[in-house]
Amino acid sequence: MIEPARLTEVLDGPYRELRRELREHLTASDTVGLDIEAHRAQVFDQLGELAASRHSRLGFAKAYGGEGDIGGSVVAFQMLGYGDLSLSVKAGVQWGLFGGAVQMLGTERHHAKYLPDIMSLALPGCFAMTETGHGSDVQHLRTTARYDKGEFVLNTPDDDARKDYIGNAARDGRMAVVFAQLIVGDRSYGVHAFLVPIRDATGFPMPGVRIADCGAKAGLNGVDNGRLWFDDVRVPKENLLNRYGDVTDDGQYTSPIESDSRRFFTMLGTLVRGRISVAGAAGSASQRALTIAIRRAETRRQFRKPDSDTEVPLLDYLAHQRKLLIPLAKTYALHFAQDELTGMLADVQSASTPDPIAQRKLESRAAGLKAVTTWHATSTIQTAREACGGAGYLADSGLPALKADTDVFTTFEGDNTVLLQLVAKGLLTDYRDNFADLSPIATARLVAEQLMGSVLERIAARQVISQFDDDVRSRAWHRSLFEGREQHVLEGLARRLRAAAASDSDPFDVFNDVQDHVLLAGRVHIDRLIFDAFVAAVEGCTDAEVKGLLEQVCDLYALSAIEADRAWFLEHGRISAARSKKVTAEVNALCKALRGQAGTLVDAFAIP
Amino acid sequence: MIEPARLTEVLDGPYRELRRELREHLTASDTVGLDIEAHRAQVFDQLGELAASRHSRLGFAKAYGGEGDIGGSVVAFQMLGYGDLSLSVKAGVQWGLFGGAVQMLGTERHHAKYLPDIMSLALPGCFAMTETGHGSDVQHLRTTARYDKGEFVLNTPDDDARKDYIGNAARDGRMAVVFAQLIVGDRSYGVHAFLVPIRDATGFPMPGVRIADCGAKAGLNGVDNGRLWFDDVRVPKENLLNRYGDVTDDGQYTSPIESDSRRFFTMLGTLVRGRISVAGAAGSASQRALTIAIRRAETRRQFRKPDSDTEVPLLDYLAHQRKLLIPLAKTYALHFAQDELTGMLADVQSASTPDPIAQRKLESRAAGLKAVTTWHATSTIQTAREACGGAGYLADSGLPALKADTDVFTTFEGDNTVLLQLVAKGLLTDYRDNFADLSPIATARLVAEQLMGSVLERIAARQVISQFDDDVRSRAWHRSLFEGREQHVLEGLARRLRAAAASDSDPFDVFNDVQDHVLLAGRVHIDRLIFDAFVAAVEGCTDAEVKGLLEQVCDLYALSAIEADRAWFLEHGRISAARSKKVTAEVNALCKALRGQAGTLVDAFAIP
Repeated sequence: MIEPARLTEVLDGPYRELRRELREHLTASDTVGLDIEAHRAQVFDQLGELAASRHSRLGFAKAYGGEGDIGGSVVAFQMLGYGDLSLSVKAGVQWGLFGGAVQMLGTERHHAKYLPDIMSLALPGCFAMTETGHGSDVQHLRTTARYDKGEFVLNTPDDDARKDYIGNAARDGRMAVVFAQLIVGDRSYGVHAFLVPIRDATGFPMPGVRIADCGAKAGLNGVDNGRLWFDDVRVPKENLLNRYGDVTDDGQYTSPIESDSRRFFTMLGTLVRGRISVAGAAGSASQRALTIAIRRAETRRQFRKPDSDTEVPLLDYLAHQRKLLIPLAKTYALHFAQDELTGMLADVQSASTPDPIAQRKLESRAAGLKAVTTWHATSTIQTAREACGGAGYLADSGLPALKADTDVFTTFEGDNTVLLQLVAKGLLTDYRDNFADLSPIATARLVAEQLMGSVLERIAARQVISQFDDDVRSRAWHRSLFEGREQHVLEGLARRLRAAAASDSDPFDVFNDVQDHVLLAGRVHIDRLIFDAFVAAVEGCTDAEVKGLLEQVCDLYALSAIEADRAWFLEHGRISAARSKKVTAEVNALCKALRGQAGTLVDAFAIP
Repeated sequence: MIEPARLTEVLDGPYRELRRELREHLTASDTVGLDIEAHRAQVFDQLGELAASRHSRLGFAKAYGGEGDIGGSVVAFQMLGYGDLSLSVKAGVQWGLFGGAVQMLGTERHHAKYLPDIMSLALPGCFAMTETGHGSDVQHLRTTARYDKGEFVLNTPDDDARKDYIGNAARDGRMAVVFAQLIVGDRSYGVHAFLVPIRDATGFPMPGVRIADCGAKAGLNGVDNGRLWFDDVRVPKENLLNRYGDVTDDGQYTSPIESDSRRFFTMLGTLVRGRISVAGAAGSASQRALTIAIRRAETRRQFRKPDSDTEVPLLDYLAHQRKLLIPLAKTYALHFAQDELTGMLADVQSASTPDPIAQRKLESRAAGLKAVTTWHATSTIQTAREACGGAGYLADSGLPALKADTDVFTTFEGDNTVLLQLVAKGLLTDYRDNFADLSPIATARLVAEQLMGSVLERIAARQVISQFDDDVRSRAWHRSLFEGREQHVLEGLARRLRAAAASDSDPFDVFNDVQDHVLLAGRVHIDRLIFDAFVAAVEGCTDAEVKGLLEQVCDLYALSAIEADRAWFLEHGRISAARSKKVTAEVNALCKALRGQAGTLVDAFAIP
C-alpha cells in the first residue's frame, strides 16, 4: 500500500512548499445556520486575517511590498477552495480581480498609490465589469466615462446598464474598477477601466453613486454582491487605468494599440488570472466532494451478499465505483492540467517582453480549462451528494454548501459555453492563418488535399486499430484518438464554415448552424490538452510505485473519456464496435482494480 | 400560432377539471430569506389550509370522509410541485406516506379511528421507515417490535438503527408509522408497521421516545426532518397495521402470506404511491425551471449579429436551443408517461380484487419513472440555472430554491440507482419465467436460437435502416430502435448472467460484474415506456393543430434520446455512421423549427 503522502508530494508539484505552508494556515469555518449578514461579517473578518498573511501579497510586485509570485497567488486561491468558498471568492475579488486590474491595467502611479492598501485591505474594492444587460458581451457595455476638462464623468444610462452581481459592492467595497466606454468629444474609444470611489470612509455611498444589494443567492452568501449606478460621477483623469490607453492634458486620446477592438481584447487578456483561479477553486471543490463520498462509500454498507449475513460496502458495487472513480480520475487529470496552466501564466506574466502568441495560447487554455473544470465540479459534487444519499443532503455533510457555492462557477468569469466557443474561434483563427488568402485554385487544391487527407486518415485509423489491437491501455493509442479527433473536428468545422460562407447564407446563420460543431471543437481540443498534461505528469514522476498507480488512474481517465465520446469515435471509424465494447469492459476492470486504492487517492489530496 | 390554452387542455388530460380547480387555489409563497423555523411555521400553516380543502381528502375512502380518488390525490401532489416544494413534501408525508400507510397497511379499526384526524391534520404524523444504517435495504431494518402480553415493545438497538431523515418528526408529528422487525417469542416475522405516538398533546415527546432535529438541509427546509429512538416503548397490539400480518390474542403470528419475504415486498408494494407522487412533483419542477429559462431566453439578448447593431435573443442560438428545447421535449414525454402511470395506479388500487401482475407492473414502472424523472429534473434545473447566468443564481429568480429542493428527489423514496436495478430485476424475472427450468439440451438450443436470433436481428436492423432510410422522423423507425434496444439489452444480460452463473464465480461477483448492464436494461425499458406513452398521447390528440405541434415535440424527444445513446445503436449495428450524423442534424433542425413555439410550449403548462 502506498503512503498517501508520497502521492501528495507528486500532486503538490512545483508549489509544494507553498501548499504545505498554506495547508497549515487554512482555518475551518462553520457556516451552517449563519444568516447572510453574519456570514458576510465572518468572511470579511477572515479576509482581514488573510490580508495579514502572505496570501494577499503573493501575486503583487516586490516593489510595492508584494512577493512577485503570480503562480503562487493562483495556488493560494486554489487552496482556499478547501475552505469556505465565500472566502475564496471574496479574496479573489479583492486581490485577484480588483487588485489584479489595478496591477495589469494601471501604471506606476496607480501601483504606488493603491497596491499597498489593496494588499492590506485598507482599501476594499470591486471589479465592476458586468452589467445587467451585458455579461458575456463585455465589449458592448453601456456605462459611459466621458472626458471633460481633466476629469472623467461616469454615467449609467439606464437600468439595463447598471453594474450587477458585483462582489464586495453591497457591504464592504470603498472603490471600484469600473469598466465603461471611454468617450472623448464625439468618439468612443471602447471599454476602459476607471478607479471610482464608491463609499466614503464612513461607508456611506459617494455622491452620485447608488448601491443596491443583490440579496440572497443560491450560495456564496458570504460574498456581498451588489448593483451600482453612476449619475454624473466625476473622477480625476488620473483614475483611468492607463496602461493601454490614455488622454493627454490637451484632451487627445492616445494608445499603443490602434484598433479599438484589439486594444479591448488585449486589456481583457491581461485579466486571465481570474479564470485560472476559478478553475483552481473548482478543482479543490471536486476533490473535497470526492473525499467525502469515497470515504463514506468505504464504510457504508447496504444489502447483503447472496446467502450471507455480510453487508457489502457501497464502494464494492460496480455502479458506485463508476460513479465515483471515473470523476476521481478526471479530477486527477484536471489537477495536473491546472498546474501546467499555472506555470504558463507565471511565465507569460513575468516575461520581460510580452509574447503575444504565448498570451493567446494562455487565454485559450484558461478559457477552456475553466469551462471543463467547473462543469466537472458541478457534476462531480452532484454525484457525490447522490452517492451519500440522505446524509449528503444534510448541511452537516458539507456537500450542500459545496454544491450551492460552486454552481455559479460555470457561468461567472465567463459563461462556459461562450468560453468553449472562444477556444474554438482561436483554433479557427490559427487554422485560417495557416491557409490565408487562398486563390480559388489553391482553395480547390486544398479541398482536394483534405478529401485525400481524410481518406488517408481513415486508412491510418484502421492501421492504428490493428496496430494497438492487443492493448486497449496503450498510451500511444489513446493519444492517437485524442489527437485524431481534435484534428478531424477542427478540419471538418473549417470545411463546413468555408462551404457555408461561399453560399449566400446570412453570416449569423452560417456560424449558428454549426454551433454544436464549434463547441465540440473547443471541447476536444481542451480534452487533448488535459490528456497531455496528465501523461506528462505521469512520465515525470520519479517515485516508481506512485507512478505505477498514476498510470492506472491515467488509463481510467483516458478510457472513460473515450468511452464517454465513443459515439464520435464510432461515427468516424476510429474504433470498431467490438473495440468500443472492450473500452467499456476495461473501464469497469480499472474501477475494480483501483477500488482498493480509492482511499489513498483521496487522502493524497491532503485536504486539511 | 396555437393558443397555449388548447395545448393545456391536452396536457391536463383526464384530470383537467381537478387541475383547473387546484390551479386556482395554489397560493404563491415567498420563502426567500426565511430562516428555518419561520419556514417550518409557514409550511405548517399552509398545510392547515390544505387540510381544510379537498386536497387532503382526495386519496382516502369515502366511508371515512374522503373522496376515493387515488389518481386525483397524485395529481394534486403534482400540482403542489408548482409552489413551495417544502409544502408539497410535507403534504406528501402527512397524507401520502403517513395516511397512505394507515390506509394501505391498516384495517377498518385503524381507518375509522385515525383517517378523519389524519385528513383534518388533527393528527400530524410521520412515516418512520429509514434508519441511519439502512435506507435502501429496508428489509434489514433493525428497530424491533417484540410482542409481549397484548402489547408491542419497540426498541432502537443502537444509533445505527435510529430512524433518520423522518419528515414531520422534528417539530410537528404526534404519531409515527414505525417500521420494525415484528418478533414473537424467538422468531422474527420481518418488517411490519406500527402506530406509535411520539408526542403528547402538548408536543412533548412520549415516554421512551427520543427525538432529534436533522438540522439544516440543502433544501426543503420547511420540512422538519428528524431522528427517532425508541426505548421500551409499549403500544397496544391493535397498533400493528395488520392487513398483512397479525398476532392473535393468544400470541400466535398469522398472515395471509406465508413467506416473510413475499409478505414484506407485498406490503412495500402497496406504498407505491409515494414514488409516483415524487415523480409528479419532479415533473412540475422541471416545467417551472424551463418556463423561467425559456421566457428569459426569448427576451434576453447578447452579442450582435455580424455587421449589425441588432443583438441576438439567446434562444436564437443553436446551443441555447439544444440546452433548453431538448429537455423541454423530454419534459413533455415524462408528463404523458406520468399521466399514464397515475391511471394505472388508480386502476390497480381501486380494483375490487387484487391483480398481482398489474401490481408488479405498476411497481416496476413507478420505480423506473421516478428514477428517470427525478434525474431529469436535477439536470434540467441545473441547465436552466446556467442558461440564466448570474440572474439564475439570485434567490429571486426562483431557480436556487427549485434546485436545492428537488436535489434529494433522486435519492429519497428509493435511491434512483437501486430503483433502476429493481426494474431490471423484474424484467429478468419475467424473462426467466418464460424460459424456466430448462434442461441442458433445451438451454443449448435456446442459446443457439439466440445466436441465430441476433444474426437475424442484425439482418432485420439492416432492413430497418434501408426501409426507413428516407425519413429520419419515421415513428415506426423510432419504435424499432427503442424496442430493439430494450430486447437486445435484456437478452444479452440474461445470457451473460446465465454464462457467469454456470461458472464457479461468487454469486455476488456474477451480478456485480454486469451491474452497468443491469442498470442499462432498466433504463432502456423505461425509455421505451416513456416513448410509447408520448406516442399514444399524440395519437389520441383530437385537436389537429395541437397534434401537429406535439408530433414535432415527440420527434425531438425520440431523436434526441436516440442521439444521446447513439453509441449503443452504432455499437450494435442498429444505425449507420451516416444515419447517426443525420439524427444529430435532424435534432438541430427540430430545435430551429420549434424555437418559435417554445413560448407556447411552456405557457401551456399554465403554471400559476
